[in-house]
Amino acid sequence: MTKRIAVFVGSLRKESFNRKMAKVLTTLAPESLMLEIIEIGGLPLYNQDCDDEGKPPAEWTEFRKQVNSFDGVLFVTPEYNRSVPGVLKNALDVGSRPYGQSVWGGKPGAVMSVSPGAIGGFGANHHLRQSLVFLNVPAMQQPEAYIGGAAQLFDAHGDITNETTREFLIKFMDAFSAWVAKNSSKNV
Amino acid sequence: MTKRIAVFVGSLRKESFNRKMAKVLTTLAPESLMLEIIEIGGLPLYNQDCDDEGKPPAEWTEFRKQVNSFDGVLFVTPEYNRSVPGVLKNALDVGSRPYGQSVWGGKPGAVMSVSPGAIGGFGANHHLRQSLVFLNVPAMQQPEAYIGGAAQLFDAHGDITNETTREFLIKFMDAFSAWVAKNSSKNV
Repeated sequence: MTKRIAVFVGSLRKESFNRKMAKVLTTLAPESLMLEIIEIGGLPLYNQDCDDEGKPPAEWTEFRKQVNSFDGVLFVTPEYNRSVPGVLKNALDVGSRPYGQSVWGGKPGAVMSVSPGAIGGFGANHHLRQSLVFLNVPAMQQPEAYIGGAAQLFDAHGDITNETTREFLIKFMDAFSAWVAKNSSKNV
Repeated sequence: MTKRIAVFVGSLRKESFNRKMAKVLTTLAPESLMLEIIEIGGLPLYNQDCDDEGKPPAEWTEFRKQVNSFDGVLFVTPEYNRSVPGVLKNALDVGSRPYGQSVWGGKPGAVMSVSPGAIGGFGANHHLRQSLVFLNVPAMQQPEAYIGGAAQLFDAHGDITNETTREFLIKFMDAFSAWVAKNSSKNV
């Protein structure tokens, strides 16, 4: 059965390398996975008072409902200042609350960092992984994906220019499919 | 000469322990420091397009101008999902751009994490420190400040209930004052 995967992109830039990558992954994923990008740029900054007072912004409620409906989660993120972009961390925070109602728990996940630089967003990738431990998102360990040199990665149509990278991405998505199948919270 | 310190609180909750702590630190700081809380809850999520198109939101421009005018920075933050709250990371991201115009570089800083839990926000504290490396904020190393048990820390007036903690906070601020004096970018 096809598993539905929510994809979160850590950059709001229109021509974001990470958004391009997310789109590419959507096309390279095996038939067992159906990927859908969930927008996070419209989520108000997390403030616990809104939940405590029973007045969460409509965008939070919609986001939580949306994510809840998926079978797994995939994060495709740049590194901002050696860590996770605030915009993506805010989405994690919003989805993690109210207390006891996190949308993340038990959903199998994977992390890919994409960066124009040489170290491929390693800092963001592993800071995100630390949060996923707490959020109880079983995160695929291998293959790790620190994609550097992103400025040379896509052609004018947003396709991958480099066959080796393309093969790696297929391998990554195949491994993620197996990971999702094994760790799905819907498995009995 | 008195140094002006911008204080950033990582929680937007009205009754936030971290906000209470920031206010306490304002009163316990030596005369050599003048602390002022800078609000970060109204900053739109960072999107590089706005800077690239020369149309940064007014809130970003105001924030950047404000922070630029200070001599040092102090972060008082809870831990959200074992890392820095999205709201605080977003403020770091907004202040770090446009490229080459970061407001953070060279400003001496300190980090205090405050949490109801036992590990005192260690995860947030050190993720934040990783960003401060990149942002070239000379961050005070000792004393470290992982303040746990925050729910028992304040009385109804927001004052510290515990004399040992109060003494530690004074020591922390005195050390920070010396750190700022030594590392001020305005030193010649």
